[in-house]
Amino acid sequence: MAGGIGSRFWPMSTQKYPKQFQDILGTGRTMIQQTYDRISQIVPSENIYVITNQEYVALTEQQLPDLLTQNIVGEPMMKNTAACNIYMAKKIAAKNPNANMIVLPADHLILKERTFLEKVDLAFRLAAENDYLITLGITPTRPDTGFGYIQFLETAGSEYFKVKTFTEKPSLEIAQNFLESGDFLWNAGIFIWNTKSILSAFDTHLEEMAQQFVSCEYNTDGEATCIETIYPKVAKISIDNGILEKAANVYVIPADLGWNDLGTWTSVYENSAKDEEKNAIQSKHILTYNATGNIIHFKNKNKAAIIDGLKDYIIVDSEKALLICPRENDQLIKDYINDLKTLKKGDKFL
Amino acid sequence: MAGGIGSRFWPMSTQKYPKQFQDILGTGRTMIQQTYDRISQIVPSENIYVITNQEYVALTEQQLPDLLTQNIVGEPMMKNTAACNIYMAKKIAAKNPNANMIVLPADHLILKERTFLEKVDLAFRLAAENDYLITLGITPTRPDTGFGYIQFLETAGSEYFKVKTFTEKPSLEIAQNFLESGDFLWNAGIFIWNTKSILSAFDTHLEEMAQQFVSCEYNTDGEATCIETIYPKVAKISIDNGILEKAANVYVIPADLGWNDLGTWTSVYENSAKDEEKNAIQSKHILTYNATGNIIHFKNKNKAAIIDGLKDYIIVDSEKALLICPRENDQLIKDYINDLKTLKKGDKFL
Repeated sequence: MAGGIGSRFWPMSTQKYPKQFQDILGTGRTMIQQTYDRISQIVPSENIYVITNQEYVALTEQQLPDLLTQNIVGEPMMKNTAACNIYMAKKIAAKNPNANMIVLPADHLILKERTFLEKVDLAFRLAAENDYLITLGITPTRPDTGFGYIQFLETAGSEYFKVKTFTEKPSLEIAQNFLESGDFLWNAGIFIWNTKSILSAFDTHLEEMAQQFVSCEYNTDGEATCIETIYPKVAKISIDNGILEKAANVYVIPADLGWNDLGTWTSVYENSAKDEEKNAIQSKHILTYNATGNIIHFKNKNKAAIIDGLKDYIIVDSEKALLICPRENDQLIKDYINDLKTLKKGDKFL
Repeated sequence: MAGGIGSRFWPMSTQKYPKQFQDILGTGRTMIQQTYDRISQIVPSENIYVITNQEYVALTEQQLPDLLTQNIVGEPMMKNTAACNIYMAKKIAAKNPNANMIVLPADHLILKERTFLEKVDLAFRLAAENDYLITLGITPTRPDTGFGYIQFLETAGSEYFKVKTFTEKPSLEIAQNFLESGDFLWNAGIFIWNTKSILSAFDTHLEEMAQQFVSCEYNTDGEATCIETIYPKVAKISIDNGILEKAANVYVIPADLGWNDLGTWTSVYENSAKDEEKNAIQSKHILTYNATGNIIHFKNKNKAAIIDGLKDYIIVDSEKALLICPRENDQLIKDYINDLKTLKKGDKFL
């Protein structure tokens, strides 16, 4: 899944060049390339699909030259994650009705690759043998209101658990309760299931959407036109809200993945190398004075800077825009952008 | 005089495109254009000369198309203000040995044009009739350590006064004493004298330099080559240190010019229009939140920005560099640049 525009990463992430296509952490590989590198160790290249906005198909081809071009699927418009999940399940099922699938966000950080591969292997085995909707769960470290939380039923000695409740993006108060209870995991947004299981879940919980996707013939010349016809009518709902919160057959595999969804500059800060003053600076030619705890990110790595007297700030510079805000305000970036949009010609910065 | 590189205005002012050639205050005219507009009301265009670095001759021609090209004089290297003053006095005297001259920095702000023209008229009359070295004096408003201070001998009812002491760039303690005493004016760096008076002062106080400039034939084909030969040997000294502090015939005309040398971002801030939060912002598409007292200056006026949570900062962005520092540190900008120079390839940002 590589269709987002990463607006919380503005101005680094823009509509034309969103987060998943950028080397946010300065490792030499973009987020989508890292995701491909990781999964291609257990899934052959010809079975890897990217679903993204039509606008990003060319960018995807460019960054993942080993991928078959017919495996890069362009959505005609943004419709949240339920639509892209049923679309891909239909497409894969048309090729192999017994296929097991793994669904991966293209913009998440995973440091512990070996654990990831082991847990995915376990998940594939479970999905192949059971009508399970499986998700990987991360032990929460803070009351983050941006994630889905999974409450599970503990069974001694098991590597996976039945999910009791699934709550997407709770309030801060609820998130704090979840964290204190110790019974909750974060939903890493990584799903493993058999195509039969997920399509059956759509039939049950998102019946209208399932009906809409019945009409197309997948992997044929007519697929794109058919998708263009049905997409405008499809509901905008996440797979979490639409399926996982409702289904009774959701299972979670706790997995210590060194995971972060890199949804905010703060999460990038936490995952970046820092200098002695705890500044996370990737560009050369940036000098700091009395500056601590800042994340400083320049699109043009050759640009110089003097940063004097800032503490715990986000400083991000692109050709078209500059962002300077306290790190604690990183959730306001979407609001900033909305304010900019209200300015004349504001859209061109986004 | 338009030869400076305005390093305290980095990164807006750069070696390639210094302050005097920029519209620092956003008035639609660059500083050198404003200076030309002002003086051309009383000095005919053919008598106006610009002395600048060779590197900026083309820029000067471009910005001042009404000027005779032979009146734009390129110095082969930076030698502070004594050298350019004797050079121009020699050149003008060769044309007219009785000429009166006014020397104007090309990068100063003067708001009260009428007062300026009146005081210059008075100064020209005095210089024509007396062997006086005349400077315009501004009543100081703060203990600025970057200016020359003039102590004068008050004579009741006079419009001009004999200078008692002349002190360039005093320490803060001395500047405070000067300010408290009420006997001091700032030297605005605007000088009026007859060429005979200033050349005689050079003979007396900077004899070696006077000797060096004797050898050239001014306003001839050989002038440039001769200047190239002598310039490397010429002392680097200011006209203030070299002449005005030593001469006994220095007079000052107090003048309320609405003057500022715009030597620092703080002085630009003070002279700029400010919004309700006291931010001086020239570019469109800049949104501020919890931000007060900042000067925000973008070379690219179409660039967007979000500035959240800064108080009394300088934020200057060019294509090649970004500066963020407290307004009170504006005198450190030269130090910042020196630090940048020590970085590999640091020079290219300057």
